[in-house]
Amino acid sequence: MPNSPQSHFQTNPAPQAQTPLGGGRIFLSYPPQMKLEDISSPKDIKGASVKELEALAEEIRTAILQQVSKHGGHLSSSLGTVELAIALHYVYDAPEDILIWDVGHQAYAHKLLTGRYKDFSTLRQYGGISGFPKRGESPYDAFGVGHASTSISAGLGFAVARDLAQGNNQVVAIIGDGSMTGGMVFEALNNSRQTKQNFTIILNDNKMSISPSVGAFSKYLSKLSVKHNHSLKKFISLLRSIPEHMSIKLKEFMEGSKLAFENMMTQGQFFRDLSIRYLGPYDGHNIQELIKTFREIKELPEVCLIHILTQKGKGYELAATNPTKWHGSDPFHIEDGSVVVEKSRPTLTSVFGKTLLTLAKQDKKIIGISAAMLDGCGLGILKEDPETADRIFDVGIAEEHAVTFAAGLACEGFTPVVAVFSTFLQRAYDQIIHDVALQNLPVVFVLDRAGLVGSDGPTHHGALDLSYLRTIPNMVIMAPSDENEMHNMIYTATQYKNGPIAMRYPRAVTYANDIRTEFSELSIGKFRIVSKGSKVLLIGVGFMLAKCLDAAGVLKKNDIKPTIIDARFVKPLDIKAYKALFKEHSIVATVEDNSIVGGFGSAIAEILAEMKDPPRLIRIGLPDAFAGQGEIEELREELGLSGNAIAEKIMFI
Amino acid sequence: MPNSPQSHFQTNPAPQAQTPLGGGRIFLSYPPQMKLEDISSPKDIKGASVKELEALAEEIRTAILQQVSKHGGHLSSSLGTVELAIALHYVYDAPEDILIWDVGHQAYAHKLLTGRYKDFSTLRQYGGISGFPKRGESPYDAFGVGHASTSISAGLGFAVARDLAQGNNQVVAIIGDGSMTGGMVFEALNNSRQTKQNFTIILNDNKMSISPSVGAFSKYLSKLSVKHNHSLKKFISLLRSIPEHMSIKLKEFMEGSKLAFENMMTQGQFFRDLSIRYLGPYDGHNIQELIKTFREIKELPEVCLIHILTQKGKGYELAATNPTKWHGSDPFHIEDGSVVVEKSRPTLTSVFGKTLLTLAKQDKKIIGISAAMLDGCGLGILKEDPETADRIFDVGIAEEHAVTFAAGLACEGFTPVVAVFSTFLQRAYDQIIHDVALQNLPVVFVLDRAGLVGSDGPTHHGALDLSYLRTIPNMVIMAPSDENEMHNMIYTATQYKNGPIAMRYPRAVTYANDIRTEFSELSIGKFRIVSKGSKVLLIGVGFMLAKCLDAAGVLKKNDIKPTIIDARFVKPLDIKAYKALFKEHSIVATVEDNSIVGGFGSAIAEILAEMKDPPRLIRIGLPDAFAGQGEIEELREELGLSGNAIAEKIMFI
Repeated sequence: MPNSPQSHFQTNPAPQAQTPLGGGRIFLSYPPQMKLEDISSPKDIKGASVKELEALAEEIRTAILQQVSKHGGHLSSSLGTVELAIALHYVYDAPEDILIWDVGHQAYAHKLLTGRYKDFSTLRQYGGISGFPKRGESPYDAFGVGHASTSISAGLGFAVARDLAQGNNQVVAIIGDGSMTGGMVFEALNNSRQTKQNFTIILNDNKMSISPSVGAFSKYLSKLSVKHNHSLKKFISLLRSIPEHMSIKLKEFMEGSKLAFENMMTQGQFFRDLSIRYLGPYDGHNIQELIKTFREIKELPEVCLIHILTQKGKGYELAATNPTKWHGSDPFHIEDGSVVVEKSRPTLTSVFGKTLLTLAKQDKKIIGISAAMLDGCGLGILKEDPETADRIFDVGIAEEHAVTFAAGLACEGFTPVVAVFSTFLQRAYDQIIHDVALQNLPVVFVLDRAGLVGSDGPTHHGALDLSYLRTIPNMVIMAPSDENEMHNMIYTATQYKNGPIAMRYPRAVTYANDIRTEFSELSIGKFRIVSKGSKVLLIGVGFMLAKCLDAAGVLKKNDIKPTIIDARFVKPLDIKAYKALFKEHSIVATVEDNSIVGGFGSAIAEILAEMKDPPRLIRIGLPDAFAGQGEIEELREELGLSGNAIAEKIMFI
Repeated sequence: MPNSPQSHFQTNPAPQAQTPLGGGRIFLSYPPQMKLEDISSPKDIKGASVKELEALAEEIRTAILQQVSKHGGHLSSSLGTVELAIALHYVYDAPEDILIWDVGHQAYAHKLLTGRYKDFSTLRQYGGISGFPKRGESPYDAFGVGHASTSISAGLGFAVARDLAQGNNQVVAIIGDGSMTGGMVFEALNNSRQTKQNFTIILNDNKMSISPSVGAFSKYLSKLSVKHNHSLKKFISLLRSIPEHMSIKLKEFMEGSKLAFENMMTQGQFFRDLSIRYLGPYDGHNIQELIKTFREIKELPEVCLIHILTQKGKGYELAATNPTKWHGSDPFHIEDGSVVVEKSRPTLTSVFGKTLLTLAKQDKKIIGISAAMLDGCGLGILKEDPETADRIFDVGIAEEHAVTFAAGLACEGFTPVVAVFSTFLQRAYDQIIHDVALQNLPVVFVLDRAGLVGSDGPTHHGALDLSYLRTIPNMVIMAPSDENEMHNMIYTATQYKNGPIAMRYPRAVTYANDIRTEFSELSIGKFRIVSKGSKVLLIGVGFMLAKCLDAAGVLKKNDIKPTIIDARFVKPLDIKAYKALFKEHSIVATVEDNSIVGGFGSAIAEILAEMKDPPRLIRIGLPDAFAGQGEIEELREELGLSGNAIAEKIMFI
């Protein structure tokens, strides 16, 4: 390892300012000589002292805390990486040097340091800056992120490109221990020697994905976090104390197992087995140590993994104590953490959880599977209930495994329920086809956050699920129009034994506080007539039924009384019944919060185009483009999914 | 570890019969007391001696060699696992005990031992038994396979199901070193401790996927294959030779690092870091050793990984020497390995390879990426050419990584070409959306084996690519109708810089031997009019254009002269030009070798259903079901993709 260049910043002992900020009380230990608001690029911090950088860290924490408390956002992760972001921008020269933040919800400090302080108040809002690194937003965001586990693969792309172009810039991937459970990380690590120069992976270990990290790898990292109580030096001095004729023998023996001996004395063998140099663990909140380390390793012509330990929620006591709750947050009062606006009604996620809990207590064959989001997907209450806890599996960020694991369980007569966000199930498309549908196994898929998700934006919208699930033979697809429909669909799904069945629902609250308790099994493929009218047939998919009712209100003023139906099913469809309805109407409008390519509207188009003298179809849905970020209703307005917009399309066809 | 039960078979030294069979000369060293043809279930081998089992192994090899030489199939892998299959069925009691073969092309011996000897001559043929384990075919095929890397996830499902049902059956996953590079294997290993009883993973290490295995993990396995030259015992005796006052110190020291010391003395730390017990390596062709090992470990209440070394192609010298060439084989003469029927014209795969080679020599920004199939996807000749070799990357079975790696390269101005089989690209659906299309990066996707693939059957058909790619915003999709169109499409793809672009083509040979050499760039989205007619508009997608021409021949006899067009593009479509054509015809028929759900026909339905007084549409394509196995033309006949069937559908609408 080359000598590290001399530090040109002061090296005072760590200041007291590292004490976490109390419930809301924000104080700066140093008079800030360098103001966050004056930093327009990372160049502005290059000459700073450790003291100044530490003061800056506090300023950044305050900015993050205040912004998220006002408008919501990812709090815990971003509070944990403030010193890391500062040290990275101090040592590396972005944007020539490439920094790729895995997932990216921890990159708020990075945004503040790269010229986005002034826009920071627009974070995650309609027309504002993204909550994730985004190429179009800044040259400092080298690679757009949102889904986990992509940074090492992408980083290798940048590193190999550098090699081929005979460049000498640095490439750094910053990845949390939660993301490390995603399979493509291993695929990338296996290929990491395809670059011939430095490629640095920073493993930001906070023992968490959104939920606490799970699995054997997480346990392994915990072991690494405890420094060994021995060293090569100590061992050599011990050897010297042994009489020479003895120590020669021992040395000979050791020579024969040199590699194994080296391994014994150092850590991170797992990574070294993959030809990756492991360094660490380091304190991820010690700016000075981070800077020293990055300087030392950046010139090494090899793949390095630097293991740093950070605390999720660092600096805001409430978040540090309960980082899962504070992973993503709605607006809150900094003083006591109370939310600004209480949700008046239960979320659909909680309806799913409660309903499945009831069913799982009655049917011991029901199993719940989550990919690192037990609470986010509603399975948390089943994990806490002693009657169901041992049937709830959190597999980590590992959607592919989740689905094929479920297939195995289904082979043995269990009813696995895979609960996952719509956008993340895209990861397991092949497993749904090859391991579940082809074998026609009764696996239940419950897709939360279908349609527009709001401020998480384009990486997280569940805009394609109806389209991609519909391509799969044997698949049944349901979308509930309200919480009581949902209640019955969950029941229907767990009763259905003829193959895979999926239910997708949006990020929303229920229409009412009281939910039905009795269960009623739905007929597969049958729609529900909401109201009879003439000429115009309005078909609502899932929660878009409400928009159809809004549209009907507008149409009524124009003397149009449409027939309104709740599609309930997207696949299969009761084609005979649909055709009969089509013959009675001259205009059919489908309304869905899914892409108009390949979704429910396309299924109806497939039927209509083969009919003789069909009514005209208006397909209303998300455009064949990536929708932006903002409040869900804001985005729906923009994209023509409001009652007014729907009514207008029908009137002006 | 419990004492192993006493062997009740004879333990003679390994017989000479293990010498590989020469080019086609088959001989048995023992008079077979137990005939393969008499084995109707694994019970029939339970009482056999090692001698008998070894003779059986030779009989099985002969059966495999003869069958594959006559009808084609996966030769090398299946010859490598004969002893393994025998030992497994000797020790384990399938079907109560669960055996899951990863990928499954190595499971011919398993099929022969489980009652399918009589049907073995129908292997991979229309109506015959599958080339892969398949649940519907036999209770001994616990889990259907075809795609790589699923066995450990599925096995964990079976194991957890066993735990929950308080059963005591065994679960064994058999996985090759090639499959170990797939990310979901790591996801599964990370979760393997979710079972509380025995779960056995057999790592069948032959240093190969289809191509030689790549990456750091493969190098790691190679290291494991060399037994260490030291042992705990030896070290302890050495310690004893040291004066006591000295050795106490040393022992104290060792105590402080007990775990590290244990690691030094044993192998497979990588797996133990994931809480998996590693045993091996063992000779995978030594039946006696395998039986002893399986008996010892099957009662251990933990997750065990048994590392065995096998030789791909074992027993047939030609295949053992060149296992890549003999991975999958057409019918051949056993004597010299020559193929029975030479392909008269070049394959489309070779056209792709040659064309890309020409382009890559001119444009140094072009990069080729393959997932463990350099030759299978046509990139082999670029890897062999010194001008392009350093721009060709084989990432192993790792489609997710392949795509995001390509995204990184594209960010830096390169033109990555990801060449992969259609069915396997399903694995990277999310990466195409999230890492490529959302950032609108110019990554080229070349999908080989689109449509029906023939004897590999339902797991391998590329029946969904037009549907799933069409759901993705910003994606351009092309399908060539012949080799010259293909030639120009490859050129067009590498010239296109506005976002991702895909070309899909079937498993086929060219129509002629001579291929154009000059390049012509195609207009994105524009179809090509092949011949003008009236009333009926026939739209062919890719190689299905030929079927449209066949249909036109039949229609002509019935005085119908259709207009015929070559779609060229599936996305985007020149809607204005299409609408103009639609107005001139009363019937439109789309013909594609893709599912009728969401594919090209659906794109046309989407246009038609929104038109006033549209012509009637007939969507002809693969059904919304999993097609079976057989010759491609056989399957097309069955599924209505022949000229006759198309003509009939048009005439009798």
